[in-house]
Amino acid sequence: MKQETHTGLNKMKIAIAQINPTVGDIDGNTVKIINYIKDAKKQGIELLVFPEMVITGYPPRDLIVKKPFIKRNVESLETINAETDGIFVIVGFIDQSQGELFNAAALIGNRKVIGIQHKVNLPNYDVFDEKRYFSSGKDCKVFDVLGKNIGINICEDIWIDNGPSTEQCSKGAELIVNISASPFFAGKEKVREKLVSKRAIENKVPIIYANLVGGQDDLIFDGRSYLFSKQGKLICKGKSFAEELIILPELDSAKEIISKDDEVEDTYKALVLALSDYFRKNGFKKTVIGLSGGIDSALTAAIAVEAIGKENVWGISMPSKFSSKGSVSDSEVLAKNLGIKFDVIPIKEIYDCYLKTLSKQFSGTEFNIAEENIQARIRGNILMAMSNKFGHIVLATGNKSELSCGYATLYGDMSGGLALISDVLKTRVYEICDYINKKAGKEIIPSAIITKAPSAELRDNQKDSDSLPEYDILDPILKMYIEDEMSKDDIAKAGFDKELVSKVIKMVDRNEYKRHQAALGFRTTPKAFGTGRRMPITNRWGG
Amino acid sequence: MKQETHTGLNKMKIAIAQINPTVGDIDGNTVKIINYIKDAKKQGIELLVFPEMVITGYPPRDLIVKKPFIKRNVESLETINAETDGIFVIVGFIDQSQGELFNAAALIGNRKVIGIQHKVNLPNYDVFDEKRYFSSGKDCKVFDVLGKNIGINICEDIWIDNGPSTEQCSKGAELIVNISASPFFAGKEKVREKLVSKRAIENKVPIIYANLVGGQDDLIFDGRSYLFSKQGKLICKGKSFAEELIILPELDSAKEIISKDDEVEDTYKALVLALSDYFRKNGFKKTVIGLSGGIDSALTAAIAVEAIGKENVWGISMPSKFSSKGSVSDSEVLAKNLGIKFDVIPIKEIYDCYLKTLSKQFSGTEFNIAEENIQARIRGNILMAMSNKFGHIVLATGNKSELSCGYATLYGDMSGGLALISDVLKTRVYEICDYINKKAGKEIIPSAIITKAPSAELRDNQKDSDSLPEYDILDPILKMYIEDEMSKDDIAKAGFDKELVSKVIKMVDRNEYKRHQAALGFRTTPKAFGTGRRMPITNRWGG
Repeated sequence: MKQETHTGLNKMKIAIAQINPTVGDIDGNTVKIINYIKDAKKQGIELLVFPEMVITGYPPRDLIVKKPFIKRNVESLETINAETDGIFVIVGFIDQSQGELFNAAALIGNRKVIGIQHKVNLPNYDVFDEKRYFSSGKDCKVFDVLGKNIGINICEDIWIDNGPSTEQCSKGAELIVNISASPFFAGKEKVREKLVSKRAIENKVPIIYANLVGGQDDLIFDGRSYLFSKQGKLICKGKSFAEELIILPELDSAKEIISKDDEVEDTYKALVLALSDYFRKNGFKKTVIGLSGGIDSALTAAIAVEAIGKENVWGISMPSKFSSKGSVSDSEVLAKNLGIKFDVIPIKEIYDCYLKTLSKQFSGTEFNIAEENIQARIRGNILMAMSNKFGHIVLATGNKSELSCGYATLYGDMSGGLALISDVLKTRVYEICDYINKKAGKEIIPSAIITKAPSAELRDNQKDSDSLPEYDILDPILKMYIEDEMSKDDIAKAGFDKELVSKVIKMVDRNEYKRHQAALGFRTTPKAFGTGRRMPITNRWGG
Repeated sequence: MKQETHTGLNKMKIAIAQINPTVGDIDGNTVKIINYIKDAKKQGIELLVFPEMVITGYPPRDLIVKKPFIKRNVESLETINAETDGIFVIVGFIDQSQGELFNAAALIGNRKVIGIQHKVNLPNYDVFDEKRYFSSGKDCKVFDVLGKNIGINICEDIWIDNGPSTEQCSKGAELIVNISASPFFAGKEKVREKLVSKRAIENKVPIIYANLVGGQDDLIFDGRSYLFSKQGKLICKGKSFAEELIILPELDSAKEIISKDDEVEDTYKALVLALSDYFRKNGFKKTVIGLSGGIDSALTAAIAVEAIGKENVWGISMPSKFSSKGSVSDSEVLAKNLGIKFDVIPIKEIYDCYLKTLSKQFSGTEFNIAEENIQARIRGNILMAMSNKFGHIVLATGNKSELSCGYATLYGDMSGGLALISDVLKTRVYEICDYINKKAGKEIIPSAIITKAPSAELRDNQKDSDSLPEYDILDPILKMYIEDEMSKDDIAKAGFDKELVSKVIKMVDRNEYKRHQAALGFRTTPKAFGTGRRMPITNRWGG
């Protein structure tokens, strides 16, 4: 160790390895970690910081219950430790001690385990289940690195007022290192920056915040690791939605960075990363998407092209007798703009065959949702047949406004391995499409698709607005009810018609059963349907 | 209060109101609770005990986050309290105190709140998420009821060695009352009885154990409330799977009861209750079931008939060109035995129409799983069309062995509002069918259905055993892996071929994505797919 070369903590050469591990792939993650250590050593780094639970990936959920899984993760730490000649490394893993498990950070260096810090504050709300698995750390330690006192804490620990950071500083910590796996939602970046800045100021200490990056099922980790000065100024910031070895400047550097984060751009980038990671980590290459001529399938296809490449995206138009003329032609223009393979598979004949087959049972009944949904389910069957025949993953195209209200057909347009934009409200779908076109400097999503009135086209002259309030009314109500957990009365007080609010809430509550069977979606808001929102299906509470 | 009539605690007139509340229906639950209080008063009961969280129903999950929900539950306690002239009542509710929420028991009587006991040990494993919502109770109290010392504790509290019961007895409790919402699995009853008996013996105290009854989504509460004497003998036991006002004998009664619980019969009764409650609580009346001629759909139909009545069950046979002759004729016999409506809707024409429509895309490819699944999805579409047209709920018919291995078609045979037997292994499916026939004293499930080799009949001469190990090998492996959380190596050591075990585990792990979109099923084993098992989909861990 080159302790003698130091004149002060500020000059210590520190880097953050903002990496993208895969849940369960302990061997692969270990190789990646070691490669980053080797690279850091080459660049003269003295202290290298990895995010929370990088050895196992985050969150491994009930894999944690498996004893061989914990054992392998501990073995991985030993393997990594063997590579720490001449460097200090902080790395997240699961520690096992006297029959208890801890979400932990190991400080290793020169092939020695210098210290282990357990996470003290375990999040057990929203998408988090850490009390299901872990015990709380009992104390907040300070470790010596090259003669300097460093306090390490883990994710939630830094969110707590008068928490571990404060305790560690009172014990003489000159630097706080927080390792995190903090999942993205649009707008979170501002909250996070403000928080870390506040912690730095109140403790008069520089803070290194190392965040995970990558997609894991419904969760997206956005990276954007930081260094904040002890004055609470943002001195260095890692890339968003990408891996990076972030070599930090001096801790007391005066060069302040001004963050510019755009919720629309962030949501787009988050979905691109989430989709490409889901495909890469699960070994998928290609996708097939039903293109309806509407804006949701257009956005889904555009994101897929960015995430996995145009050569891997196949758009299928499946017109019925209720489809508008633009349904096929607008989709064709879209496919051309995106440069993707495009097929038209009309469903009229199959639909007629269903009606004939069901003529005895349906005789004397009126056309209703049964006939509408038959069409949606024929399309689902065709897309799944393409998937089964050619190994393409189907992307469902529904947005969050539809999914909230149950304005979607189970086993029809809800079919697919992933529901890419299911946590994006319709109004934001429009914003992202505008962003894509603006960014490209030309029309990627055809303006005909953006300007037409939304319709499921499952009966004559159908419009979304026949069944749903206009989206610029609906979306704020949905946001207040789902994301902000506001009551019916409070939403009405915010300026919405009480009867309409009741109607919307009833739709949301009644359709829990559909969402129970929905494809995996990616969280881009503070409250997505999925692991973070656990509502009963059998539920007589009226909102 | 008739305190003066007592000669001792043993003679106190106590009853358990083993009731079936509905989650979220606070007003309805309140009415039910008051009716039981009125009935108990008529019968001279002095102390009436209700189960855990009966005011809200259990588990209300994220409804607990809603402030008006908590408020209404507190108001309900006040309403109930107004009915307690001349009686003591113990009732489960959610207590709010200084910004914290507690899973609580209120002791009320003569219109007074005598005391409130908070749950100390919050389960946060398996299906339980109580640390997501509640704070732990800080102390274990003893209350005076008619001059006697009673310790009240809640569910998990009695499962803890040297826990609340012991503390309360050391503080002078002469009787322990535990209020529970303890969900069923086959075999749990034995564990529970042994536990409560042990607590009674070690504390030399009689124990009243009041358990919830009823179905709530995936969970089934089986009732079977108890009185154990201080010698640890079972003195009184409530009904299984039914509501009851259980009037207890004297606490020191010498009359011991011998429990007889049969896992097969229990599973059957549990599913009947779960299905009828799901329908009743959600306002459904009728079901439509695809009858394949196989044993799974036969069992599903038989349970449905018992749960909601034969007049509400519609069986549909949907033969294809790959269907065996028995597919229709055996189903017809089954329908006749059950007395249900029966229709045959052949799918050959629709299937041919799909192939024709897809001929361009499929040209040059071999018949494979794509063509197989098209058939399953046509059947799913037809059943859902019947559901949409006539308001019948579709029951999916897959068993746990299939669901474990992914031997099922998403949007095909997995379609439905409920997957009734999705937590029943195939070998147990046979056992339950035998039980049904034995109980009826005649053939309800035709022997032709019981004895034929299982087949999906999606291609010529297909058998389950082409893709899966024989069920008497497969099921024990699945049980060890899923229920017992055993590792690959340990399962092999238990006497199974290591390669086969690896293959099975791989199938289970790879099909997490299918189960993510599976219909709600009812838990009848210690570990069901659903809220109690939380596995990542993106998962490179090899089991």
